[in-house]
Amino acid sequence: MTDPFWVGIDVGGTKVLAGRVDAAGRVARVVRLPSGGPSAPVELLEQTLTEALARVCAGATPTGVGVAAAGLVDAVGEVVSFAPHLPWRDADVRTRLSARWGVPVALENDATCAVWAEVEHGALVGVSDALMVALGTGIGGGLVVGGHVVRGAGGMAGEFGHMQVVPDGRPCPCGLTGCWERYCSGSALAMAAGPRFGSGPAITDAARADDEGALAAFDEVGRWLGVGVANLVAAVDPSVVVIGGGVSAADDLLLVPAARALRTHLVAAADRRLPELVVAHHAENAGVVGAAVLARRLTQR
Amino acid sequence: MTDPFWVGIDVGGTKVLAGRVDAAGRVARVVRLPSGGPSAPVELLEQTLTEALARVCAGATPTGVGVAAAGLVDAVGEVVSFAPHLPWRDADVRTRLSARWGVPVALENDATCAVWAEVEHGALVGVSDALMVALGTGIGGGLVVGGHVVRGAGGMAGEFGHMQVVPDGRPCPCGLTGCWERYCSGSALAMAAGPRFGSGPAITDAARADDEGALAAFDEVGRWLGVGVANLVAAVDPSVVVIGGGVSAADDLLLVPAARALRTHLVAAADRRLPELVVAHHAENAGVVGAAVLARRLTQR
Repeated sequence: MTDPFWVGIDVGGTKVLAGRVDAAGRVARVVRLPSGGPSAPVELLEQTLTEALARVCAGATPTGVGVAAAGLVDAVGEVVSFAPHLPWRDADVRTRLSARWGVPVALENDATCAVWAEVEHGALVGVSDALMVALGTGIGGGLVVGGHVVRGAGGMAGEFGHMQVVPDGRPCPCGLTGCWERYCSGSALAMAAGPRFGSGPAITDAARADDEGALAAFDEVGRWLGVGVANLVAAVDPSVVVIGGGVSAADDLLLVPAARALRTHLVAAADRRLPELVVAHHAENAGVVGAAVLARRLTQR
Repeated sequence: MTDPFWVGIDVGGTKVLAGRVDAAGRVARVVRLPSGGPSAPVELLEQTLTEALARVCAGATPTGVGVAAAGLVDAVGEVVSFAPHLPWRDADVRTRLSARWGVPVALENDATCAVWAEVEHGALVGVSDALMVALGTGIGGGLVVGGHVVRGAGGMAGEFGHMQVVPDGRPCPCGLTGCWERYCSGSALAMAAGPRFGSGPAITDAARADDEGALAAFDEVGRWLGVGVANLVAAVDPSVVVIGGGVSAADDLLLVPAARALRTHLVAAADRRLPELVVAHHAENAGVVGAAVLARRLTQR
């Protein structure tokens, strides 16, 4: 007899990542498949998820399955209501997959899953009030209040990237201007560094080799990170702020200027305990672990 | 035998306001005394509170007393740690007043109390996820998650007024620049309207009489209200946003431009249910009612 396990499946616009996760949050047997994007038929996407699940289970039965979707999940975790990079349109994903697989299924937005991964098995274990800011193409993340990730009235909480930081500032694909993620994200870093660098990791490597342009780009993006975090800290007063997403691999290159800007932009900084600024424990597997955590919470109720 | 009642005492920089509050949140017998300000001795302030309490009780015994303090209250509701307009300095107010009066005492920041008043007996009854923005000299308010007012790790959540909305913007007495309350508050309204008007209510009267300068001032402050609320809605996704404080008496003069700016500055505004924007039910007595609510919650545990 095997120990109980849960499966987390992270469904993104380009890939499906599935992993077997034990009660301690350890990931084993990861499977990666192409997701087909928004124009693939729904049935094809769901076949891909089914195949990924079968391969990570290898004949064993999971206690539950969690699905982390790159899209908006409704307030009760049943329906993917809006997902520009996936074919699901107002789709009752949780019920359908649960019936297809014959196991309990949890469904949640991928950014929210990543916060749950930190809450249960990462930088936020035992922390009641926290904030996570995940820097990728845009900004993901979430608020933690009383040890729970805040979903909001319609499941849309945590859209930090579209808080306006500059009136009439840089245009954003969302249709607004001056959005925080135009100044602070992987995309903003690439723009600040200029076309010399082919990728985010290349900018990090150059900065580690003291390239002035790369260092200046991290200083600028890190400063905007601190400004935006100061705004969120004023609003919610967390004890820990977790920085996640691909850009967080740059660690101190980003966190040092961010911490400096946080101190100079936070109200009453001298009269309060500043929140800890830390890097997320989970990287590429954050969605997988978080989705499995939610499946576990569902099946252990 | 009288019905049970609680007393709320709102302790501000210039006045102490005490009221007798029943289980339905109705206020009776309000007493107002001068508070003496930050330079008065602590004993004098506490004598004033004791006198106010005695006068509202008139010989009857309250089930509990709540104190709403214009200052920072620590994470467990025991100590007033910082209050620029009051003489308390790291003072163990809850324990001391409870011993002096022989009744259970609840202690909380006044802005947080005002949110509790709306949650239990006002615009937020039955609402799980909400936001309150109170416009006075600055901005007060708070977040409601799961029907509870969020305190944050150190009791400092809800400092919305010092979120930066303009980089290198107007200087703020807090030492920062570009703080939201420099653009959106009673003070900002007075500044926008210019020196012709002696008071906030005078600006409202002039706007109601179609004075162009007064109307433009409300449009400007209301627009900034919508911009800042859009940022907070992106972060926490509430179903209701309550506007409180003295300026909220202007009602539609403020809320119409605010709702317009909220729609044009909120991410995915076309694809979501916009939060309701409503005026607070409690005005001057908000702190009294909220403090009494907290005393009731304490004594009904």
